[in-house]
Amino acid sequence: MSSLPPAAFPQREHDSHKGNFGRVMLCGGSRGMAGSIALASIAALHTGSGLVSAAIPDRCLETVASFHPCLMTIPVADDAQGRFSVDAITTLAPSLDRFDAWGCGPGMTTGEGSMRIVQHVLQATKLARVFDADSLNCLAKINWGQQPPLNHHHLVLTPHPGELSRLTHVDAKNRDLQIEAAQNLAAHHHVTIVVKGGPSVVVDATRRWTNSTGNPGMATAGSGDVLTGVITSLLGQGLSAWDAARLGVWIHGAAGDKAAARHGQAGMTAWELLAELPQVIAAFDSESM
Amino acid sequence: MSSLPPAAFPQREHDSHKGNFGRVMLCGGSRGMAGSIALASIAALHTGSGLVSAAIPDRCLETVASFHPCLMTIPVADDAQGRFSVDAITTLAPSLDRFDAWGCGPGMTTGEGSMRIVQHVLQATKLARVFDADSLNCLAKINWGQQPPLNHHHLVLTPHPGELSRLTHVDAKNRDLQIEAAQNLAAHHHVTIVVKGGPSVVVDATRRWTNSTGNPGMATAGSGDVLTGVITSLLGQGLSAWDAARLGVWIHGAAGDKAAARHGQAGMTAWELLAELPQVIAAFDSESM
Amino acid sequence: MSSLPPAAFPQREHDSHKGNFGRVMLCGGSRGMAGSIALASIAALHTGSGLVSAAIPDRCLETVASFHPCLMTIPVADDAQGRFSVDAITTLAPSLDRFDAWGCGPGMTTGEGSMRIVQHVLQATKLARVFDADSLNCLAKINWGQQPPLNHHHLVLTPHPGELSRLTHVDAKNRDLQIEAAQNLAAHHHVTIVVKGGPSVVVDATRRWTNSTGNPGMATAGSGDVLTGVITSLLGQGLSAWDAARLGVWIHGAAGDKAAARHGQAGMTAWELLAELPQVIAAFDSESM
Amino acid sequence: MSSLPPAAFPQREHDSHKGNFGRVMLCGGSRGMAGSIALASIAALHTGSGLVSAAIPDRCLETVASFHPCLMTIPVADDAQGRFSVDAITTLAPSLDRFDAWGCGPGMTTGEGSMRIVQHVLQATKLARVFDADSLNCLAKINWGQQPPLNHHHLVLTPHPGELSRLTHVDAKNRDLQIEAAQNLAAHHHVTIVVKGGPSVVVDATRRWTNSTGNPGMATAGSGDVLTGVITSLLGQGLSAWDAARLGVWIHGAAGDKAAARHGQAGMTAWELLAELPQVIAAFDSESM
Repeated sequence: MSSLPPAAFPQREHDSHKGNFGRVMLCGGSRGMAGSIALASIAALHTGSGLVSAAIPDRCLETVASFHPCLMTIPVADDAQGRFSVDAITTLAPSLDRFDAWGCGPGMTTGEGSMRIVQHVLQATKLARVFDADSLNCLAKINWGQQPPLNHHHLVLTPHPGELSRLTHVDAKNRDLQIEAAQNLAAHHHVTIVVKGGPSVVVDATRRWTNSTGNPGMATAGSGDVLTGVITSLLGQGLSAWDAARLGVWIHGAAGDKAAARHGQAGMTAWELLAELPQVIAAFDSESM
Repeated sequence: MSSLPPAAFPQREHDSHKGNFGRVMLCGGSRGMAGSIALASIAALHTGSGLVSAAIPDRCLETVASFHPCLMTIPVADDAQGRFSVDAITTLAPSLDRFDAWGCGPGMTTGEGSMRIVQHVLQATKLARVFDADSLNCLAKINWGQQPPLNHHHLVLTPHPGELSRLTHVDAKNRDLQIEAAQNLAAHHHVTIVVKGGPSVVVDATRRWTNSTGNPGMATAGSGDVLTGVITSLLGQGLSAWDAARLGVWIHGAAGDKAAARHGQAGMTAWELLAELPQVIAAFDSESM
Repeated sequence: MSSLPPAAFPQREHDSHKGNFGRVMLCGGSRGMAGSIALASIAALHTGSGLVSAAIPDRCLETVASFHPCLMTIPVADDAQGRFSVDAITTLAPSLDRFDAWGCGPGMTTGEGSMRIVQHVLQATKLARVFDADSLNCLAKINWGQQPPLNHHHLVLTPHPGELSRLTHVDAKNRDLQIEAAQNLAAHHHVTIVVKGGPSVVVDATRRWTNSTGNPGMATAGSGDVLTGVITSLLGQGLSAWDAARLGVWIHGAAGDKAAARHGQAGMTAWELLAELPQVIAAFDSESM
Repeated sequence: MSSLPPAAFPQREHDSHKGNFGRVMLCGGSRGMAGSIALASIAALHTGSGLVSAAIPDRCLETVASFHPCLMTIPVADDAQGRFSVDAITTLAPSLDRFDAWGCGPGMTTGEGSMRIVQHVLQATKLARVFDADSLNCLAKINWGQQPPLNHHHLVLTPHPGELSRLTHVDAKNRDLQIEAAQNLAAHHHVTIVVKGGPSVVVDATRRWTNSTGNPGMATAGSGDVLTGVITSLLGQGLSAWDAARLGVWIHGAAGDKAAARHGQAGMTAWELLAELPQVIAAFDSESM
């Protein structure tokens, strides 16, 4: 591999069953963006989660289910456009405790249904969570950065520059200031933040880590959804937010490098990136077992 | 191969047609868990069954059908949530005799519709059957272990530790006691039971056999569904319950070992496991023909 | 290759457009058996047809369309069970002239809607046609063998032993008598008949040809559907019924042999067989160009 | 590669995000021809566009979405047959400015809904656009060649001989006259025209360029849809109409040559052609980086 991974991959015991490797939930999607949550969910399967469920607007269920037969799909109340309805949280709330980690955001839009889900999941401070994409835009809409701090040690945010700008009001093009603002936000709410870019930087209240893997070919639709699935999976397998974020970003970048080597930077899509996850992770097997 | 298979694979005559290799039915699925019965059905196709039908809740038909063009799908009466309705057995009962083996359970839930199906299929003692997943939970709900014995020589059960615990009231973590209880249940009802684990153990009234293939990477969603399809297929090709269970477990584990070698234990899903079935089975061709 | 092909593969001119290689229609399917007509249609694409349309019961359209983005699909009036309705022929009749060949039968059932389609297409004696599967059972229901002869020089039938028995009233297990009866039927109606088996035999009024490719692994669901697509494609590219039937059977068997070599006889499905068609056909390129 | 490409492939900066590589819209499809717009859209993804949306008749959304999880799909008002309705343009018009390039036409039919879309998009002279397939037939219906000229420097047309004949009233079989007529049309409206054939020729008002890649195996359903996606993607990445048309035709032909080498000319479909795009484009990486 091109560089050393920042954390150890979770070990597997020989007498295991699928629950041992984490039950994770990926929550998102909407009609027209159903593929996003499928990508995140399949990425979690390939990162080693034993049981992966996708909670999606009812109308998107068949589309998401058709992408991989090993996914479980949970239909959630939706509106006429196939987005989470205001009642969606009612279906989801009782499920929070049944999962070891939640990933939230890909393709979910920022409608009222999504707002309620995000605010509810935000309160579950004991649950390991990843907030990505529109769930970050929901946080921006409630001006989360100005709200009283909560202990969110188990929360990872994965904003791209535009999302981070909406969260912190710092210009998307000023990378140094963005990283600074992300670290302030991380300190305020005790979260870990992946500041996406070339290279991506992971920050928490006091630490900064710069990723050494990845390439511009990963700037393609769905790439971030895959990252959400990878980090959610690692959280569900017991890594800390800091380790899951760093190792997830590193694995994602290494898979992107393999995809670019095989298909070229322009020709690869996030589907090719996803397909390389097993090879990247398998390298941990041979090194550590 | 890593070890010798416990039974011979069924031979094929040169002047064959697809009916010669067994017509099998896989019965299960529900909205949100449609992939499970697709996995079982496709596994049966790849294990050599000439004709494979999936009996599924009506609303799941298109999802299951889209996973493989060689599957036939049979729509069964369902309820508003896409689960078998209480009338489902009416559709299915006349079909019992048209198949050489039935596999029952993956993703079917334990609602009233499933309960009636399981109880009906249970009575068909001359039919070769596999009960897995929720069909085992249905048996637990009727306290089957305490019911008068029937001659179920053609019945294979494939419980994981949690399902076995519900069937036998023995703690899922006490493996020795679980195997003991499984053998008692096997003796009572004249069935063959696959006690899943690392390694899996197959028991009937008097025998115990420990599998030598497999790895922890197989502890992943859908892996058991594939096993159901493999054993159902072998039953449909004329193997005894004892041979089909052992050979099925062995093939399933060998395919899992190939998948882990290619994709890593964490990175593989049951879809990769399924994809290795032909290679495992092809090795029998070259050895025996 | 294991043996010499019985006819030359159609040549391609350099200044070609997709219409040059034949517009073919595959007609069949029903809810629960939609994959069959998808297999036939995709096989026609891979055999070189430039434009392939599948005419299917309306309710099956999305399922069939999802199997290959290069297929065109034509929705036809259907009944509540997703089978061709009695009005189906109304949609189809005006299309007969727009295609160079029709393949008819896979998965279509023998309901009244199918009966009317088959009887109408039967009258189009100038059109190159393949009748397979349930379209043969429809012919049996009208006791076609006893009807006055028509000049069907452009018609190929592809019965398996059971279908041939229904057409000719000769026991499916008596292969010699079946071939004899097929030839009598071929002579009566001036058709070409593929008598499937190990090996398959092609007969017309005066000739018999025995195929040298193929293996028992091809006795699997969907294998016959692929053959229908291959022969329809060859007819659409201008081969005679006699040449298209023989070359189609030979190509189909050679693809089956490649699939068995790669995946094993038990492990292969018709989907693997289909995937080998291009390699078999590509060998003609290198030999003849 | 078999010949030198006619233009440089767009470069990628290291600190990129997905918006840098172009947001492109592919507009088309109808029930029964949904695969066409999926092919175009996926081709754009593999040509390097960071964000690709498909605007399709509402009823086709799930079918198109199922072909690739990285596509975004936009439902547009449709009629009972699943074609763009007369109101479709209302949904689409506000989106014109949000994309760097539009591709229009595959599978869209020439109904009133399509006519309105084409006429509206035609007026957006500052937008980079590709018109293909039925959008060309729509132009023919309004006798566009006789209309007053507009400055369409950013418009590429990709007619096959039949479409060009409808546009210019020149016999589809007279290739020299067709090229002549295309150049006259190009001069009148300041557009770039790809005159498809063996070989394809690209013309604008004053220039002619003859492609050196490609083969008769590309005369297959969906091949033109892939070309539309490739050229739209290149326009969205900032190439001029003239460069995008030539480079797109060259890449498309080179991918077709790779597909033919791997699968044979008869056996390949447009899906295999599409699958080779990354390899062709990756060769630019190694040459120029």
